[in-house]
Amino acid sequence: MTSTSHRHGSLFQRVVLSGTVGLLVSSTGATLAAPPDLAAIEREVARQHDVSVKRLQDWIALPSITAEDLNSREGVEYMAALARDAGFQQVEIIETAGKPGVFAKLDAGASKTVAIYFMYDVKQFDPAEWSSPPLEARLVDKPGLGKVLMGRGAVNQKGPESAVLAALHAIRGAGQDMPVNVVLVAEGEEEIGSPNIGDIVNAPQVQAALREAVGIFIPAASQDPDGRVTVNLGAKGVVELELVATGEKWGRGPARDIHSSLKAMVDSPAWRLVKALDTLVSDDGNTITIDGYPTPRPLSASEKSMVAAGTAIRSEARAKQVLGVPHWIDDLPWQAANERLVSQPTVNIQGLVGGYTGPGGKTILPHRAAAKLDLRLVPGMGKDAAVAALRSHLAKRGYGDIEVNVTGGYDPTSTPADAPLIQAQLAVLKRNGLDPLLWPRSAGSYPGFIFTNPPLNMAAAHYGLGHGSGAHAPDEYYVIESANPAVKGYDGAVMSFVEYFYELAK
Amino acid sequence: MTSTSHRHGSLFQRVVLSGTVGLLVSSTGATLAAPPDLAAIEREVARQHDVSVKRLQDWIALPSITAEDLNSREGVEYMAALARDAGFQQVEIIETAGKPGVFAKLDAGASKTVAIYFMYDVKQFDPAEWSSPPLEARLVDKPGLGKVLMGRGAVNQKGPESAVLAALHAIRGAGQDMPVNVVLVAEGEEEIGSPNIGDIVNAPQVQAALREAVGIFIPAASQDPDGRVTVNLGAKGVVELELVATGEKWGRGPARDIHSSLKAMVDSPAWRLVKALDTLVSDDGNTITIDGYPTPRPLSASEKSMVAAGTAIRSEARAKQVLGVPHWIDDLPWQAANERLVSQPTVNIQGLVGGYTGPGGKTILPHRAAAKLDLRLVPGMGKDAAVAALRSHLAKRGYGDIEVNVTGGYDPTSTPADAPLIQAQLAVLKRNGLDPLLWPRSAGSYPGFIFTNPPLNMAAAHYGLGHGSGAHAPDEYYVIESANPAVKGYDGAVMSFVEYFYELAK
Repeated sequence: MTSTSHRHGSLFQRVVLSGTVGLLVSSTGATLAAPPDLAAIEREVARQHDVSVKRLQDWIALPSITAEDLNSREGVEYMAALARDAGFQQVEIIETAGKPGVFAKLDAGASKTVAIYFMYDVKQFDPAEWSSPPLEARLVDKPGLGKVLMGRGAVNQKGPESAVLAALHAIRGAGQDMPVNVVLVAEGEEEIGSPNIGDIVNAPQVQAALREAVGIFIPAASQDPDGRVTVNLGAKGVVELELVATGEKWGRGPARDIHSSLKAMVDSPAWRLVKALDTLVSDDGNTITIDGYPTPRPLSASEKSMVAAGTAIRSEARAKQVLGVPHWIDDLPWQAANERLVSQPTVNIQGLVGGYTGPGGKTILPHRAAAKLDLRLVPGMGKDAAVAALRSHLAKRGYGDIEVNVTGGYDPTSTPADAPLIQAQLAVLKRNGLDPLLWPRSAGSYPGFIFTNPPLNMAAAHYGLGHGSGAHAPDEYYVIESANPAVKGYDGAVMSFVEYFYELAK
Repeated sequence: MTSTSHRHGSLFQRVVLSGTVGLLVSSTGATLAAPPDLAAIEREVARQHDVSVKRLQDWIALPSITAEDLNSREGVEYMAALARDAGFQQVEIIETAGKPGVFAKLDAGASKTVAIYFMYDVKQFDPAEWSSPPLEARLVDKPGLGKVLMGRGAVNQKGPESAVLAALHAIRGAGQDMPVNVVLVAEGEEEIGSPNIGDIVNAPQVQAALREAVGIFIPAASQDPDGRVTVNLGAKGVVELELVATGEKWGRGPARDIHSSLKAMVDSPAWRLVKALDTLVSDDGNTITIDGYPTPRPLSASEKSMVAAGTAIRSEARAKQVLGVPHWIDDLPWQAANERLVSQPTVNIQGLVGGYTGPGGKTILPHRAAAKLDLRLVPGMGKDAAVAALRSHLAKRGYGDIEVNVTGGYDPTSTPADAPLIQAQLAVLKRNGLDPLLWPRSAGSYPGFIFTNPPLNMAAAHYGLGHGSGAHAPDEYYVIESANPAVKGYDGAVMSFVEYFYELAK
């Protein structure tokens, strides 16, 4: 990989940095690109198609899974090599308190710089649940969609990320100017909640590079199966944590599992957990009742109109069918349910685990019980404030012994619709005949806060055409050859990034 | 096995039924035994020691585990063969809705009959957790205790049961009269809560045989490591059940696990379970708050004095240390804690399991969550009434969709101290220099109700000298050669049953 990277890197330097191919140096020293020959690039994308898909398949064959402490070192070195191979001249592995990240710069001599966020890690998987081996990334026919690449990381996020790399390779291969400089920040802990992303982003050289950028985008496969694209103006924050009640910490109940008959004289940490949980939400489980918890700000008029527009387009019946949900909370109508989705923080139980969890029963009084929670946060609510309120609430209610073990999370993130990063997206999408739906924020979460919060105050958003699904699930896929003309295949996804780079340069 | 059994059976019939060895037929037709030569029997017990221990080891090598659907047919046939071999002339396998049981009669022509309850099943085990292979039943040295037999079922209950069989073999081998007739009832589902024991005990021929008996005893290793014996005058009842909340049954929330971000618009079955659980007990987890739940009767003066006597003898410090419990419920003093143990029903959480239970977190909104509960019952509270009250409570509170899946259990059981079955125990124990502690009831449970409830209204109790521990745990053991003169080894345990039979005949 390294020797290949070196060879391609040299080629890139010959073509771009020598200034022989259509580069003019302006009086300010910035480069002024000749009008790009997009048709030539598109032909080059097609010519490189097999190489690009093979690059993605090779990457999927090396899964980095932080939760399993698997291949992070191999993964970060592979990531660094991919960046060098794609033309980043400066590629640095940055160590963190956890798994290392990559910081890379592609200096095209351009006046504008865009940043890209990559993750090189993937979610855990169980091959037994897959219809196709998850590390082989085979091309399989998926009815209605076309030929898809099926494998762990196919859409989350190696597929779209590989399409960005393919865009860089194709621009170079077509002898065209790279119109913007690119800063790459890649981490290997996204799937465990990015606990150490600050160690990468806050490094002085990374901060300096990011301050030059018009914004940062996360490569994505943004198209629904019907081709529609939603542009999210941010995302909720999240805190992932475990509440753990134990006899040891409580100073009551048993220090190890004991026979259940002793419940008559011994206190129960499992009941204590239930009673503490009970205080966190209303009886219907839907309103947060944590004392002093930050409150969400109401939706603005423009956010409400975005939701109204989206609600009108999206099918409620289909959403209910896909989720297996017969009623929304409080039997809300579709639009109000979507307003709630966009605007409300949540306290969700991901899992309950305590004592005996196997088949049938076992007569024990367990010494330990835990609830795995995630708290979704909306603007105005920070991760630290939410956790502090939770701790304070538990202490005030007499549950100060219950451990609050935060395993990951981050603040919410927002980017205004008029940010050039967003406007460039909208321009490319419209030029492609797509009528993108603006949405106030994703109900899911990603660590955009590290870029949009002070001191960087950057714009941040997901971007990319194409379609895929199954993140975190078996049979994850990314469409390579689309059966639906409204949905881009792999080459179309690559071109969406090419076009974005040129649009951002304007 | 069958041919051996037949040979021994014939021998037994020759010796006992021919009436040639010291049997006199009284005017009522009942046999009057000559005074037993206990010294001769004791010598025979010693002579048969190796054969008896080998019989136990062979039995342990065949584990019947109903929860794993393992070896029940082989186990019941083995149990039947063991009974025939020990002299039961009539041995019948009784089919049930679950696993089969054994009903056997040893007709000694005696005027009195005693019944014995056996279980031929054992608890699940994981060999990796054992220091000695659990099916090899090796003899190992255990510091402070002596030579113990270590294996699954060693004390729960194959060890003590084998000692009863060895007692029958020894009486016969010593050419002595069997002083009582014996009825044997053996089941193979004790470890899953005896759901079908009624199919055995309610069979007409079994009912008829049991009606002849002075009572029924469960062979046990009743001695503490220091030699002390507690005689329990019954046991609490128990219900084992799962409360299960699902989106499907609820008609709200998701029908399958969905992404946790959707909590903002979708109801949560896990929160519903927590809220329903919360209604079952007081805030400290210790007082049952189920509407219409049967209430326990207060302890009688005699029960209180039994507890007082026991409390005075037992070490609170040692109990706290063994259990890892720094404080009893409500910081009760030792005697009050024991009164609570004996007299109070419980609602215990054995386990909580829902959604993601692995390491770290997983951002799902689970469609299902379950709590495994056991309810301990005291006299005046039946299993059916407790379950009915729980169901009615949940329905009344609006949780009628939460499944109450009862997996096993039974009513409490009580036997008066003046029952001949108990008095005979006390007489033998005192003759052995032991000062048994009478205790109102065990806080644990066993299916004695099927015998002590109408229509049989029998006396029922555990009985047997010797010591063992580790039921349901790794390294379960039964003392074979005791290092402590106050604790009986295997031969002493066998003799405790011999003496009991002769005492019961008085």
